[in-house]
Amino acid sequence: MPYVNIRVTKEGVTSEQKSELIAGVTELLQRVLHKNPATTVVVIDEVDPDNWGIAGEQVTLRRKRGE
Amino acid sequence: MPYVNIRVTKEGVTSEQKSELIAGVTELLQRVLHKNPATTVVVIDEVDPDNWGIAGEQVTLRRKRGE
Amino acid sequence: MPYVNIRVTKEGVTSEQKSELIAGVTELLQRVLHKNPATTVVVIDEVDPDNWGIAGEQVTLRRKRGE
Amino acid sequence: MPYVNIRVTKEGVTSEQKSELIAGVTELLQRVLHKNPATTVVVIDEVDPDNWGIAGEQVTLRRKRGE
Amino acid sequence: MPYVNIRVTKEGVTSEQKSELIAGVTELLQRVLHKNPATTVVVIDEVDPDNWGIAGEQVTLRRKRGE
Amino acid sequence: MPYVNIRVTKEGVTSEQKSELIAGVTELLQRVLHKNPATTVVVIDEVDPDNWGIAGEQVTLRRKRGE
Repeated sequence: MPYVNIRVTKEGVTSEQKSELIAGVTELLQRVLHKNPATTVVVIDEVDPDNWGIAGEQVTLRRKRGE
Repeated sequence: MPYVNIRVTKEGVTSEQKSELIAGVTELLQRVLHKNPATTVVVIDEVDPDNWGIAGEQVTLRRKRGE
Repeated sequence: MPYVNIRVTKEGVTSEQKSELIAGVTELLQRVLHKNPATTVVVIDEVDPDNWGIAGEQVTLRRKRGE
Repeated sequence: MPYVNIRVTKEGVTSEQKSELIAGVTELLQRVLHKNPATTVVVIDEVDPDNWGIAGEQVTLRRKRGE
Repeated sequence: MPYVNIRVTKEGVTSEQKSELIAGVTELLQRVLHKNPATTVVVIDEVDPDNWGIAGEQVTLRRKRGE
Repeated sequence: MPYVNIRVTKEGVTSEQKSELIAGVTELLQRVLHKNPATTVVVIDEVDPDNWGIAGEQVTLRRKRGE
């Protein structure tokens, strides 16, 4: 029954990687909290780097500087 | 003043259906909690089935199996 | 499979009202989008009126003025 | 370490405006709560006006009426 | 830089279990997406079972029936 | 009409600071995006430091080490 929301920047996450994240989080909740995988929901939000800020600036700018 | 966030998979939700969801949730909050519809906010997020996991796997895979 | 998050101020919402909100939203998603009620998740967050702002001020202040 | 999520309708927000929002919120949290800007995260979600409801109806309809 | 929000019912989650969830999710994001652990944020929300609905009813009721 | 969610650790945020955050964010959205303050909603979530993770560990542990 848990709900997990993973938010990352949209920078080429593949379908296989999404599948690994979903399986990994669901397994973690089963192992640590004994949650039923059948009703565990995981939603991945991919966010435009222009819309993601850290340290007061857009990720887009950090990527341009090679960070 | 309530804020409601409805998250569903992006699978052909029409504008009319979105309109019904918004009207329905707003009416429900007015009826049950006497909330003022004028400041009730409803936001619908449509999520790529590749990014939505249940039971440890992507909805995309479930749809391929006909579920 | 939908996930719905209802956020309201914490001002005496009863268990019966929560039950009505959960049943009402689940029924709405079944009627409008044919979503399976068995996997529809609804989470209600009750927020301290001191932590909720509208029109640039805390709800606590508006309540003191009788709004 | 704070996390701030700004949700607005998708109506031509420019990259410069996003940059101003990110810088402004980060500065505000530093000034008011002494939060370290280096780990302050700000995420802006732009939402289709068809998916945003207020007063029981879609923003799209309000825009058509000139509101 | 990822932000992960884990929402579960408030039913005796220990500090050790929270620690395991935080470490596990951070490691998963590093392994699958090469995300820097230093800026990965994980927030756990524990929700009153009265406020969590599944299948149209409160978790509280399901627990009373032994589910 | 914007919705802003500010999430910080629960470490003695005063009502006056909350008031400043709400006023500051509302003013920022009016200045940068010309959003109507009357319908701008700001919700502050204060999270137990035990439930907040950064760099793979709980904030509680970091505070104990004096960070």
